[in-house]
Amino acid sequence: MGIIVQKFGGTSVGSIERIQHVANRVIAEVNNGKEVVVVVSAMGKTTDELVQLAKQLTNHPNKREMDMLLSTGEQVSIALLAMALEAKGQRAVSLTGWQAGIQTEAVHGNARISHIDTARIKAHLQEGKVVIVAGFQGVTTDGEITTLGRGGSDTTAVALAAALEAEKCDIYTDVTGVFTTDPRYVKQARKLQEISYDEMLELANLGAGVLHPRAVEFAKNYQVPLEVRSSMAEESGTIVKEEVSMEQHLIVRGIAFEDQVTRVTVQHLPKDLQTLPAIFTALANRGINVDIIIQSTTSSETTSVSFSIHTEDLQETLEVLQSWEGIDVEHESQLAKVSIVGSGMISNPGVAAQMFQVLAAKGIEVKMVSTSEIKISTVIAQEKMVAAVEALHVAFQLEEKEAVVS
Amino acid sequence: MGIIVQKFGGTSVGSIERIQHVANRVIAEVNNGKEVVVVVSAMGKTTDELVQLAKQLTNHPNKREMDMLLSTGEQVSIALLAMALEAKGQRAVSLTGWQAGIQTEAVHGNARISHIDTARIKAHLQEGKVVIVAGFQGVTTDGEITTLGRGGSDTTAVALAAALEAEKCDIYTDVTGVFTTDPRYVKQARKLQEISYDEMLELANLGAGVLHPRAVEFAKNYQVPLEVRSSMAEESGTIVKEEVSMEQHLIVRGIAFEDQVTRVTVQHLPKDLQTLPAIFTALANRGINVDIIIQSTTSSETTSVSFSIHTEDLQETLEVLQSWEGIDVEHESQLAKVSIVGSGMISNPGVAAQMFQVLAAKGIEVKMVSTSEIKISTVIAQEKMVAAVEALHVAFQLEEKEAVVS
Repeated sequence: MGIIVQKFGGTSVGSIERIQHVANRVIAEVNNGKEVVVVVSAMGKTTDELVQLAKQLTNHPNKREMDMLLSTGEQVSIALLAMALEAKGQRAVSLTGWQAGIQTEAVHGNARISHIDTARIKAHLQEGKVVIVAGFQGVTTDGEITTLGRGGSDTTAVALAAALEAEKCDIYTDVTGVFTTDPRYVKQARKLQEISYDEMLELANLGAGVLHPRAVEFAKNYQVPLEVRSSMAEESGTIVKEEVSMEQHLIVRGIAFEDQVTRVTVQHLPKDLQTLPAIFTALANRGINVDIIIQSTTSSETTSVSFSIHTEDLQETLEVLQSWEGIDVEHESQLAKVSIVGSGMISNPGVAAQMFQVLAAKGIEVKMVSTSEIKISTVIAQEKMVAAVEALHVAFQLEEKEAVVS
Repeated sequence: MGIIVQKFGGTSVGSIERIQHVANRVIAEVNNGKEVVVVVSAMGKTTDELVQLAKQLTNHPNKREMDMLLSTGEQVSIALLAMALEAKGQRAVSLTGWQAGIQTEAVHGNARISHIDTARIKAHLQEGKVVIVAGFQGVTTDGEITTLGRGGSDTTAVALAAALEAEKCDIYTDVTGVFTTDPRYVKQARKLQEISYDEMLELANLGAGVLHPRAVEFAKNYQVPLEVRSSMAEESGTIVKEEVSMEQHLIVRGIAFEDQVTRVTVQHLPKDLQTLPAIFTALANRGINVDIIIQSTTSSETTSVSFSIHTEDLQETLEVLQSWEGIDVEHESQLAKVSIVGSGMISNPGVAAQMFQVLAAKGIEVKMVSTSEIKISTVIAQEKMVAAVEALHVAFQLEEKEAVVS
């Protein structure tokens, strides 16, 4: 009998009514003859509320204790979903991360799954129960509770699907699939029928918010087929898989964007080989996510480096940089990152040039650029973000219907 | 270095400000040179809120899943208290029930602690950390999360004090100690300086609500000295210990009472030896707490039995009794239990008679009576409850100052 892993996000389990709706979705899959493992996030805004409680106590909460605190959110959801299923006559059992055998490395706040011992899950499946696993959390070999970082429930679901050799991992969310860009901002956005792991990875990394990048990486490594679909609407979603049939001319597949970006520029850096790695190591040790990094050396005795961070990390970043003498630090907030993604870029030169032209025609200054084989990211003023996305959406013909060979 | 166990109830950790206040209390004990283990309950009304969530899904939530759900409440508290202590410069670590090695029997909703493996707690104490343990919860040998039932955090604290051979267990609560009766209802109520385990046990069992009875039993068995004291006011509380100095004439030490009592009477029971045990076994299997049981056999062919239950268990009780044919079931709700307690009763006959006279003089009908060596319980109309307690408080001279030989 095939195993299906279903993952429901915080919005999907945001109320008692929605949990009952999720229970129906789960039972439908059981009635299809599947063994079902369900991964759920914390209800609605629970995680944010817990973070707020902690922030009332301290600006720098102990990360171990944050994991202790935040992991309760998913534990509430799994218990309620199990009750909802039992109330509908479906046998079910909920398991926390440690009960489900989800072992992680000994890092708090952003741990990676190191191993899943599936024995307990399999035993419950054999009893004919739906197994509900708390997303976002795991346990170290020392019995410490860890969390997987933002969007970690996706990772839990995909990792379980891989470990259980599931047929498929369905990611239920509050949107109906992966879109060419965020439909909340750009009304021309169109749902994609398929997308490749690589493209999804770039979009996920770029803040598209539909899927956690680590989850996509996991899915790609273990070739777990994903479907991103709506927990509310009864329609097919977007399949994420290795090879995607694609129209020739569709070079760009999606546009991702995120606000609350800050650019930090460090000047008068000594040109030795130690300083630059030391700075980024210090930032990493504080858990600060540095995104784009730009350095260009000139003939002067010192050099400069610019990088982008989430604006919420600015204060901590400045604290870290204060410990270096002789450097000048400058920063600019109210920025946004806008990125175009598509596997087709590899064989189509000039995409970057076209992107800059589109932005220039709208009077938008590009403050930073970063490229990979299948994406181009630009940092621009936050107030121009949506206008930039709309212009790029038109220029790269994303509103047109794709011709998928099924 | 001596170990002190401190327990703080839900009201004491009911807000961020109160948690900070608790942190100060903990640090004061550390500054006294003690190793401190802190047990906390869920914040304020958290447990009630979680129960309400479950009730929206089902009237009979799966007990395993209720434990999964409710145990999150204490986990939030321990994490926040650890953060509060760290923010004040005191190293601390929080542990859930399973992390703290609190093993229980495999019963959900009302498990008993079977064993405490103190290794992890001791290791953290040796690192100079305050150890904060989630009250009310434990784990079975199969890794299932259990809860200890209402007031279980008291039991956690006393059991830890016993297992760690602590000097003392301080139970911090929202009252300043153990009173002759509940001061919220009877303004003449007076705080006791000392009370014996046995008296406290009767008062705890009788719904005085200050201490969980199982905790008192544990304390008595392991001779753990308790102090019940206020988490707000800086004053000494009530010491609970084996032998209490006592004035000769103070026969009654306290008056306990509780409302929401229902009397159930089963008539036309066959006079065989099986039916009565079968009924109470069936009730026990459904987790229904039967309190007072009264049976008096007559010469007729059948017999009858009356017992009291919490009104909230009435519906389930009636369901259980429906399965017996030929019996008649009658019930009366809106009742209350009022009990007088005191070790002095053993050597003073006539206390029951005096109690009945006091109630009769107030026109209060006694509907059920139950006695032990050191307590007499009566079931009366709920609307007369406070009047009965006030009259008994005066009659047994409880408002007078006790003469403790210290």
